[in-house]
Amino acid sequence: MSRNWRNVKRQEFKIVFEPTGRQVYALPGTILLEAAALAGVIVQTPCGGAGTCGKCRVRVVSGSCPPTSACKAALGEPEIASGWRLACQAKVLSDLVVEVPDRSLFEAQQQILVRDEGAGVVLQPAVGKHYVELGIPGSMDSRSDVDRIHRAIHPFTFKRAGLHLLRTLPGALRRQAFAGTAVVVDNVMIDFEPGNTAAQCYGVAFDIGTTTLVGTLVNLATGADLAVEARINPQTSYGDDVISRIRKCREEPKGLAQLQRVILGAMNDIVDALIQRAAVSRESVYEVTLAGNTTMQQIVCGIDPSALGELPFSPVFTDALSLTASELSLDIHPNGRVFVFPQIGGFVGGDTVAGIVASRLDREADPVLLVDIGTNGEIAHKGKLIATSVAAGPAFEGARISCGMRATAGAIEKVMIEADVRVNVIGNARPAGLCGSGLIDVVSELLRVGVLDATGRILAPGELPASAPAAVRKRLVERDGHTDLMLAGKAETASGEPLYITQRDVRELQLASAAIRSGINILLAMEGLRPSEVGGVLLAGGFGNFIRRNHARRIGLLPPIAGRKIRFIGNASSLGAKRALLSVAEKKYASEIARVVRHVDLSLSPEFQMEFGAAMMFPECDLGAGMDAGSLNQGSGGCG
Amino acid sequence: MSRNWRNVKRQEFKIVFEPTGRQVYALPGTILLEAAALAGVIVQTPCGGAGTCGKCRVRVVSGSCPPTSACKAALGEPEIASGWRLACQAKVLSDLVVEVPDRSLFEAQQQILVRDEGAGVVLQPAVGKHYVELGIPGSMDSRSDVDRIHRAIHPFTFKRAGLHLLRTLPGALRRQAFAGTAVVVDNVMIDFEPGNTAAQCYGVAFDIGTTTLVGTLVNLATGADLAVEARINPQTSYGDDVISRIRKCREEPKGLAQLQRVILGAMNDIVDALIQRAAVSRESVYEVTLAGNTTMQQIVCGIDPSALGELPFSPVFTDALSLTASELSLDIHPNGRVFVFPQIGGFVGGDTVAGIVASRLDREADPVLLVDIGTNGEIAHKGKLIATSVAAGPAFEGARISCGMRATAGAIEKVMIEADVRVNVIGNARPAGLCGSGLIDVVSELLRVGVLDATGRILAPGELPASAPAAVRKRLVERDGHTDLMLAGKAETASGEPLYITQRDVRELQLASAAIRSGINILLAMEGLRPSEVGGVLLAGGFGNFIRRNHARRIGLLPPIAGRKIRFIGNASSLGAKRALLSVAEKKYASEIARVVRHVDLSLSPEFQMEFGAAMMFPECDLGAGMDAGSLNQGSGGCG
Repeated sequence: MSRNWRNVKRQEFKIVFEPTGRQVYALPGTILLEAAALAGVIVQTPCGGAGTCGKCRVRVVSGSCPPTSACKAALGEPEIASGWRLACQAKVLSDLVVEVPDRSLFEAQQQILVRDEGAGVVLQPAVGKHYVELGIPGSMDSRSDVDRIHRAIHPFTFKRAGLHLLRTLPGALRRQAFAGTAVVVDNVMIDFEPGNTAAQCYGVAFDIGTTTLVGTLVNLATGADLAVEARINPQTSYGDDVISRIRKCREEPKGLAQLQRVILGAMNDIVDALIQRAAVSRESVYEVTLAGNTTMQQIVCGIDPSALGELPFSPVFTDALSLTASELSLDIHPNGRVFVFPQIGGFVGGDTVAGIVASRLDREADPVLLVDIGTNGEIAHKGKLIATSVAAGPAFEGARISCGMRATAGAIEKVMIEADVRVNVIGNARPAGLCGSGLIDVVSELLRVGVLDATGRILAPGELPASAPAAVRKRLVERDGHTDLMLAGKAETASGEPLYITQRDVRELQLASAAIRSGINILLAMEGLRPSEVGGVLLAGGFGNFIRRNHARRIGLLPPIAGRKIRFIGNASSLGAKRALLSVAEKKYASEIARVVRHVDLSLSPEFQMEFGAAMMFPECDLGAGMDAGSLNQGSGGCG
Repeated sequence: MSRNWRNVKRQEFKIVFEPTGRQVYALPGTILLEAAALAGVIVQTPCGGAGTCGKCRVRVVSGSCPPTSACKAALGEPEIASGWRLACQAKVLSDLVVEVPDRSLFEAQQQILVRDEGAGVVLQPAVGKHYVELGIPGSMDSRSDVDRIHRAIHPFTFKRAGLHLLRTLPGALRRQAFAGTAVVVDNVMIDFEPGNTAAQCYGVAFDIGTTTLVGTLVNLATGADLAVEARINPQTSYGDDVISRIRKCREEPKGLAQLQRVILGAMNDIVDALIQRAAVSRESVYEVTLAGNTTMQQIVCGIDPSALGELPFSPVFTDALSLTASELSLDIHPNGRVFVFPQIGGFVGGDTVAGIVASRLDREADPVLLVDIGTNGEIAHKGKLIATSVAAGPAFEGARISCGMRATAGAIEKVMIEADVRVNVIGNARPAGLCGSGLIDVVSELLRVGVLDATGRILAPGELPASAPAAVRKRLVERDGHTDLMLAGKAETASGEPLYITQRDVRELQLASAAIRSGINILLAMEGLRPSEVGGVLLAGGFGNFIRRNHARRIGLLPPIAGRKIRFIGNASSLGAKRALLSVAEKKYASEIARVVRHVDLSLSPEFQMEFGAAMMFPECDLGAGMDAGSLNQGSGGCG
């Protein structure tokens, strides 16, 4: 950085997104779509951000944001005058307040739910609440307590009452003078609450990643998100990939119990934080949905994943599980339910199913890839609906990287190299580390300016091309026979220690990226497709909000596919889990998906090792021809 | 007794019933049908024992048993020569071995089950066992463990695997080299056992009475009974009727928990005894069915019955419950299931439903009464399918009677008065007490010989009619202003203490009998029926094996209905519970019955008190005209 940190910070603008009120700081020139994604607000872009479909319209309520010609063409004068802009075109040039209408959101994020079976979710949760006033029964009315309630509400609303409720119901019914709110989950009445509590009806959707756990608190009466919380999966202290967790279960008699205990502890922490932030009571959280890879799902349920550690890598179950919260010691309503996503096979589990549910991959017209980038990368393909998983390692989630961190406040999430290195930090804070998207950026930018060669080696100062910026050259440090690059000096960081990207960090990214890329290549080969024939790539993950598409291609993570075909869909697994919470039809859809998707095991594929080796090399910088004007990349230039 | 006990004992003959091997000692002249009933073998008598239908045929394998003319008419010469007799006609005149073919059994007792939907049960238990050899999976076969098993057996056999099994399945599958027996209960796979254990498949049917608990161990692979065990309900130490149990739950904070604990303890004792006697393993008992009145069922499940102690006498649930054995701490297979019968309303619960299921009451052509005699008497009527319950008290089960006992070894179960009092004792033992059927006998016989008057007073020796046998006169003892009768002297009894029937005992029987009778009278009045218009009475109960029909009428327990119309159907509640164990269709039938039967609450009926008062008087001894040749009463004579 040629300017000191304070200078950089002053250049950022604050953008507030309504109606959620989420806010983010962005550099001048950032496209609104990207700023929104940084805030976790995923705007839909069916045209890939080309500015042609008009689906991404948002309204600038305050601040200056001049319309582009594409905005004017798509929206017309009266709308422009009212502040409407295309999020994929308009740029941040001041502090802004931006209203994102529900219809412009990526569909799985839409909050107000439509009532038809089209794109949206019909709000039809497994949880129902029904207020009834039964009246004091007459002296000849010797019907049962359950029968009384059953006849007062829709006869098909529930089939039976749970044993725990039967044990408290007679007392509750009489204390409440035969009035109250029946709580029904999955056709089972689980509570009868005093008063009319029908509006207090919540659930938590969990994305259970190998490295990261994300919980979303959802209002099941309205479909609205209330809060999101994430935690590092505490199992990472026993090893940062699924294989290390499986090994622990295989080798230690209490390994499984230990791993289960810590992950359930973290999930309960997330529940605690969610209900506190949204100020809802624990007893009004009635359902949890849970999507993770096969290893994670099995460990959460206390089901031994050992067989995933040997050929033929078998999960124990395939169909969705319906459990009680008490069976898992999850601290929600004591009679609450847990839905565990169905699994496909091998390591391809509920997270991939949830991702397909969120993205509607199977309903795409063209051959489309869904690439979910996490510690375990999952890749699904629309063609014959096949899916595979690759061990990417946790680099994209900030682990195994010397200054890596999760995409939270203080994480460098974006890096640009101009005259010097410029960074964007989440939460308007001093930098504390580097998250996945920042890592991809820095490697991509170093490639572009010639500081990295195609093998991934950081060149020594003496080897640099003449075109390399002088300020970048000064950041290079030679140590133990290799070169590292200083991202931020000790005066700029939160800790007072400088942040480096090291040669080893680049190698970690190469491994992670090569794993994903070789998986993509093999699926395409199996379908007989060249990259140019791919209709689209849905890029999903909770790794760092937003991967710049050009950068993803430049480092070889994605094949040379036109930028307009690449759509970022956010944390698809988390969104799928939320959909299941919102509708029983989505659960059924998940079960159908799990049955039809075929699992492809790459571990036995001789092609995989070859592809992996080839993908370890960065592509030559001749991909510019594949790039296009719709690119979201702010720092593009040179070979991008 | 004019002869001493040893003389009486020598006069009895041993009858062995095949194929069960059950044996009993009976006095000379006892009809085979009755001897069989004493052994718990209920032979069907559609004609009411008139000797005309020929359905009760049995084969005398050894011993002397001359055919009667009715036998010859119904069976023909070749069959008579092969030893076939009508059980309702042939008499015990020597030790016998008698073969009872399955088709001659009361249908609910039939062991080999027919395959059509007619009278019998189609063997279709909720428990299924399926041996599979899956073979070691190939290296590319990454299906889930559950999926592997699912595809190897019929696809509709189970819908899911229980969480407990999922936690042990992967280890079991691999230890067993991918072969074993899948155990499925109610569409849920609950175990995967080593080897082929399909033949080891058991269940226990429980009749949960206020006073008596009966458990039957059933082979679910064949439908055969393996063992029966009964215990006094240990809750009787807290009061001998349902009201005292309900009061305990209402008044003591831990009352319900205490009552639940002791009854579950006794049920587990029964399970222990059953599996020991039949030499089967606890882990191969997979299901329990449970039928009792509403109070008993709720207490067993830990569901507060307090609302049954106040108007309008509401049970908590109506529909059947499907629970896990572990929820009730029942010591069968740890993942086993419990089916709790559906309930009707008020005090009319699962036992009445089970009784209707066993008797097919709703399918009778004529108006038929089902009278289940227990501490709570339940009466159901075919007409509009109505049912009520009356508090009979435990006298029929031997409680509240000075020398009362359950119908087990040592119980006087039959009493005849000829020159002196003659008794029949269960189990060829010295008498230790008097069970329900013996109590009815002795009161009926004392009425007949004029020792009891119509108000139920035992006359003093000086008041006796001249016809009273001199030996009986000598047994009367005047004490505290009333008269008691010595049934057995101290030299004859097991304990060395004499056994009396006291004036108070007679009063207890009057109360019990009047409760049942007034209930019958009101149901008939509601249906607009005179006793002569009743097509039949199905007499059920676990009270003492066999009530002599003439005696039941003579003491006024039953209205004056021709003896041929009265059929003893054994412990119908227990048989219904067994049917539910044998077939899911029977469970469904039970649910349908519970929905259509209407509960009649007599507690608020002004007629009930009047009827009850009237029924306290014994009928005048002019009922002889209503009696008929088909009577089973061995001691009949005089006014019978």
